[in-house]
Amino acid sequence: MSESMLSELSVEQCEDLLAKSPVGRVGFSYAGKQVILPVNYRYLDGAIIFRTLFGQKMHVAAAENPVAFEIDAWNELAHSGWSVLVKGRAERILEFEALEEADDIGPRPWADAASDGGWIRIVPDEITGRWLE
Amino acid sequence: MSESMLSELSVEQCEDLLAKSPVGRVGFSYAGKQVILPVNYRYLDGAIIFRTLFGQKMHVAAAENPVAFEIDAWNELAHSGWSVLVKGRAERILEFEALEEADDIGPRPWADAASDGGWIRIVPDEITGRWLE
Repeated sequence: MSESMLSELSVEQCEDLLAKSPVGRVGFSYAGKQVILPVNYRYLDGAIIFRTLFGQKMHVAAAENPVAFEIDAWNELAHSGWSVLVKGRAERILEFEALEEADDIGPRPWADAASDGGWIRIVPDEITGRWLE
Repeated sequence: MSESMLSELSVEQCEDLLAKSPVGRVGFSYAGKQVILPVNYRYLDGAIIFRTLFGQKMHVAAAENPVAFEIDAWNELAHSGWSVLVKGRAERILEFEALEEADDIGPRPWADAASDGGWIRIVPDEITGRWLE
């Protein structure tokens, strides 16, 4: 329970963690408000892909607005943990081959309803991570 | 592993979860980019409080910009989970009594360095939550 030291993760470590985690959080601005929504995703060919309903996330994505994507894990008792932050742009996946690949090996949405939506891709501009131990 | 149903949480359920969780994520816009950063926090008198270094989070807070705050938990095998989203504004805690209270019962920052920072309060405009089961 002592105080912990914060260190930076390498981009390679961040990408390993992105490849292993099932759930992350997308952050964006919508109608003048900030929003953070969890998604189950996959890290594929250097991009984050997930399926979503045709709602607010899709609107932001279609407009190619800046988004953040974050994953983390914590140990409350040890006061240790890590987090990875991706800054990038979201876009709808529209190319036929990429859609086929996403349908094949992309994450299946946990919520029934999201099966009716479309695929979003977050292309990273910057990947950073920190760990606390 | 079947598909799950999404339901809304009541504000009371959201506040119970906010009171119990040790770590949440702050989302904001900074220099034209979206950012999500984890913090250890406490939910106190209807607001989220946490300590932070005098860096980017503090800058946003001082300007009373819109922020999002999110907590969640997941069970990957069951495809179940919940999330709570707070939309609001961040501000520095400057009043003497509130600072005393924060120093007394606010969360101790896990990272050593954050002890040198200041207290931030997120005042909710809207609290919503969802669960998937």
